[in-house]
Amino acid sequence: MAFHQAEHSLLVIPGPIEVSDDVLFANATPSQSHMSKSFTETFGQAIKMFRQVLVTERGQPFIVAGSGTLGWDMVASNLIESGDEALVLHSGYFGQSFADCLEAYGAKVTQLKAPVGQCPSREQIAEALTTTNYKLITVTHVDTSTGVLSNAQMVSEVVHQISPDTLVILDGVCSVGSEEIRMDEWSLDVVMCASQKGLGVPPGLSLVCASERAVHFVEARKTKINSYFASWLNWLPVMRGYEQGKPVYFATPPVQLICALHASLKEITSRPIAERWTKNKQASKDFKDFVTDELGLKQVPNDPAFAANGMTAIYFPEGISASDIVPRLLECGIVVAGGLHKEIKDKYFRIGHMGLTAIDTTTRRDLEKVKDALRHVFSAAGYVNKNISK
Amino acid sequence: MAFHQAEHSLLVIPGPIEVSDDVLFANATPSQSHMSKSFTETFGQAIKMFRQVLVTERGQPFIVAGSGTLGWDMVASNLIESGDEALVLHSGYFGQSFADCLEAYGAKVTQLKAPVGQCPSREQIAEALTTTNYKLITVTHVDTSTGVLSNAQMVSEVVHQISPDTLVILDGVCSVGSEEIRMDEWSLDVVMCASQKGLGVPPGLSLVCASERAVHFVEARKTKINSYFASWLNWLPVMRGYEQGKPVYFATPPVQLICALHASLKEITSRPIAERWTKNKQASKDFKDFVTDELGLKQVPNDPAFAANGMTAIYFPEGISASDIVPRLLECGIVVAGGLHKEIKDKYFRIGHMGLTAIDTTTRRDLEKVKDALRHVFSAAGYVNKNISK
Repeated sequence: MAFHQAEHSLLVIPGPIEVSDDVLFANATPSQSHMSKSFTETFGQAIKMFRQVLVTERGQPFIVAGSGTLGWDMVASNLIESGDEALVLHSGYFGQSFADCLEAYGAKVTQLKAPVGQCPSREQIAEALTTTNYKLITVTHVDTSTGVLSNAQMVSEVVHQISPDTLVILDGVCSVGSEEIRMDEWSLDVVMCASQKGLGVPPGLSLVCASERAVHFVEARKTKINSYFASWLNWLPVMRGYEQGKPVYFATPPVQLICALHASLKEITSRPIAERWTKNKQASKDFKDFVTDELGLKQVPNDPAFAANGMTAIYFPEGISASDIVPRLLECGIVVAGGLHKEIKDKYFRIGHMGLTAIDTTTRRDLEKVKDALRHVFSAAGYVNKNISK
Repeated sequence: MAFHQAEHSLLVIPGPIEVSDDVLFANATPSQSHMSKSFTETFGQAIKMFRQVLVTERGQPFIVAGSGTLGWDMVASNLIESGDEALVLHSGYFGQSFADCLEAYGAKVTQLKAPVGQCPSREQIAEALTTTNYKLITVTHVDTSTGVLSNAQMVSEVVHQISPDTLVILDGVCSVGSEEIRMDEWSLDVVMCASQKGLGVPPGLSLVCASERAVHFVEARKTKINSYFASWLNWLPVMRGYEQGKPVYFATPPVQLICALHASLKEITSRPIAERWTKNKQASKDFKDFVTDELGLKQVPNDPAFAANGMTAIYFPEGISASDIVPRLLECGIVVAGGLHKEIKDKYFRIGHMGLTAIDTTTRRDLEKVKDALRHVFSAAGYVNKNISK
């Protein structure tokens, strides 16, 4: 019997996102032992497919029950030793949070802050790397609060030129599965994300991938890891075991969510990953053109070159506020997100277009529905795009 | 349309356990915003119902994406300051793990170890509390590796007599929802568990409840909490917010798992919780009598007074080993667990009877099926109960 999810409002916030019937049905897999042959196979395959999504052959995945936030704790507890310097590239709300997390584990954090809508430049990063010896540098690939896309490849290049011992950490919570990431080619040391965004799975999984260099560091470090649940030393035998078909126990894995992840990764890896990035770019460009040309609205990222392809952050026009738009969209069955970045919180709103919403343009027409609804609600709110009416 | 889960082998390990169609269907709830009115209501109600299960009015729940193990990190990171003394009552595998976790956060841990099949006595606990000033004491309510049930009420009484400032921590991973727990009446400071055992939900949630005293300590402590994801200071506004109908963001909650928890807690709290404990006791007694009388097998707990009501740990008879029994049970569609405690690992196996398997005796006959299968496989393995054949 085919499973069809219940009718519901279209969820186009920047995560959680819409998930397919297959994925949701996998999340309703009947109970099975976490040590069973069948689940071991599922988990092992999911680990391998996650590597494919990140275009890495040598990375070590850690797939653990948790939120994306837990990935920061994994980075901080495993890679930071008390007093280590860390450089956080700040392109919105989540840079500050990552910095707070690193500090909880004893890091001395320097934040390189860009104005709202931008990310730190190559020159600023190069200068910062020259003055201090950083243990690690963090990049928020897409800051969900602003929709700013950082150039992860460029950052890694600069780091490897100027400070090659510095570990490069990519917070890919709002980018993995939607934005181009080549973990090995770009020499990234950690890529971390969560299940509920570009990977198209319900929330509840923290997914992290560590380079050989990062794993070697952890295995060789002399100081104690200040965590138990986040310690890679506890998870390494588990991840290696499941991948080799031999289940190892540390904590009970979230069986159904791993089944859902498996189902989604199967869909994702059934086509070349670069094709997915291209589709996301096309969908994003089309939607952003609509926002600019037809609605005549400004976006939070100052320059299309650093606007995310999985979401769009849009300023309200003069005289229009969230209360004019968001509830009206809800009435049309469209769920968007309000502002999050505290400097501009009430001035903008956010629309997510990751996963199915961007990729499945044959059986779904999510973004067409969103456009229709936006046309309707802005007009109902009395807004006129003067560029068009001229 | 009614949802019915697929046919599958009967899972009677000590967690994950069988879950109801309603719970599984709730785990396949379509995507919704974690900030939506509807999800906020669901989460708020789940928090309140979790309190009912623990019979507490004043406890502060923390319901977070994670495994049960994360609850140890919550206890250790929030309540331990470096150098604090901790007393771990050891009744199996999980005492050692809790001790390891506490040490990761700087605790000086003393383990009071009981022989396999027993738990530390009142006298031993009293003596330990007299010699050292412990910040906290931990009790593994049911050690899943041995099926030993500790007397949590007794432990708390002794602590409050001899060392009233010591915080009493109950690891209820394998007991909440199956064993009697009265958090307020017994003056417990923390009760922690996971979703996939007595609560009858798929794995992926760490559920912790802290007393007012424990929360006050954390809010007033001067030293930094050595965690970010496990820090109650980050979660307190979230839990209080959702309970009051005002969603607060720290990390994206595992929406579908919270819906599943809500569905299960609704079933559980639809009847008085004491009735559930009684049903678990009856099912357990009936099954244990069968093991002793009909199969003539010995259990790991040395005394019925400290045998868990949610699981049974059974020694193989002379000449019979796991490979004679477990694969044959699998062929009968029954999934049990092997040994876990390293001192006796190959000498015993474990059967879980929590949740539906113990409670729903009208529409299901799980334990009857298990008994039939055990009769069959022991006989097929050439085992004869000499007590009966005499």
